[in-house]
Amino acid sequence: MDTFSHVPPGFRFHPTDEELVDYYLRKKTASKPIDFDVVRDVDLYKIEPWDLEDLCKIGSGDQNEWYFFSHKDKKYPTGHRSNRATKAGFWKATGRDKAIYRGKFLVGMRKTLVFYKGRAPNGQKSDWIMHEYRLETSENGTPQASTY
Amino acid sequence: MDTFSHVPPGFRFHPTDEELVDYYLRKKTASKPIDFDVVRDVDLYKIEPWDLEDLCKIGSGDQNEWYFFSHKDKKYPTGHRSNRATKAGFWKATGRDKAIYRGKFLVGMRKTLVFYKGRAPNGQKSDWIMHEYRLETSENGTPQASTY
Repeated sequence: MDTFSHVPPGFRFHPTDEELVDYYLRKKTASKPIDFDVVRDVDLYKIEPWDLEDLCKIGSGDQNEWYFFSHKDKKYPTGHRSNRATKAGFWKATGRDKAIYRGKFLVGMRKTLVFYKGRAPNGQKSDWIMHEYRLETSENGTPQASTY
Repeated sequence: MDTFSHVPPGFRFHPTDEELVDYYLRKKTASKPIDFDVVRDVDLYKIEPWDLEDLCKIGSGDQNEWYFFSHKDKKYPTGHRSNRATKAGFWKATGRDKAIYRGKFLVGMRKTLVFYKGRAPNGQKSDWIMHEYRLETSENGTPQASTY
């Protein structure tokens, strides 16, 4: 196939859950190079959802989904609970995690979170949705690839 | 931006009408190089719709739309009517042509056709749909970029 040095007209980044976990997140956690800079590194808990548009822009088209890697932040240094608060609000998990398969093999899990403005338990629910992906490994303290 | 030599995982060719006409078809008719071989050259009237899957495959994902360039075939050497018959059937226009704009500027038109098996006027309607794009120029005897 040909070589191109930018995203040609007509191409959109519409990855499947499997591609996000089994290609992008797997490469990222193994510190392997990723061909193209479409999933950005951010510190999710230092930015607000509405900052993502600028930080995670791909090409020139309209986007209503943004892709990024962010390290998980623990609530307490010794615990397992995640701290998902930002300055303006917090991310709260909703529903059940979804299993992600490559063929018959479980490769990862997807958690859905909703952004609330304010402080728990009095936050105000917003329209911002995040999908947090994790590799299915023995330990889950792995970096995350997420999408709004 | 980075360079890549293949379509990276997660990218799909989902062009807008404007991109098909104003980028791909415009370059093609001007014989300018196109970065990436996603719109194939075929002779539409020598192949059947079901042959397109192999001829116009992009990458490894599932596709239910195929993109190609094909020269228009005239029904009679001196006339303006198009001959859209194949061995197994024929393409018949349906509905109105749709105007395609870049901002305020009309850049092309899109005709919708349906494939009928058999011979007119007794063909049997199929589920195959084609969009035939043309540049909006003073003459319309230009090559076509089409999608099923």
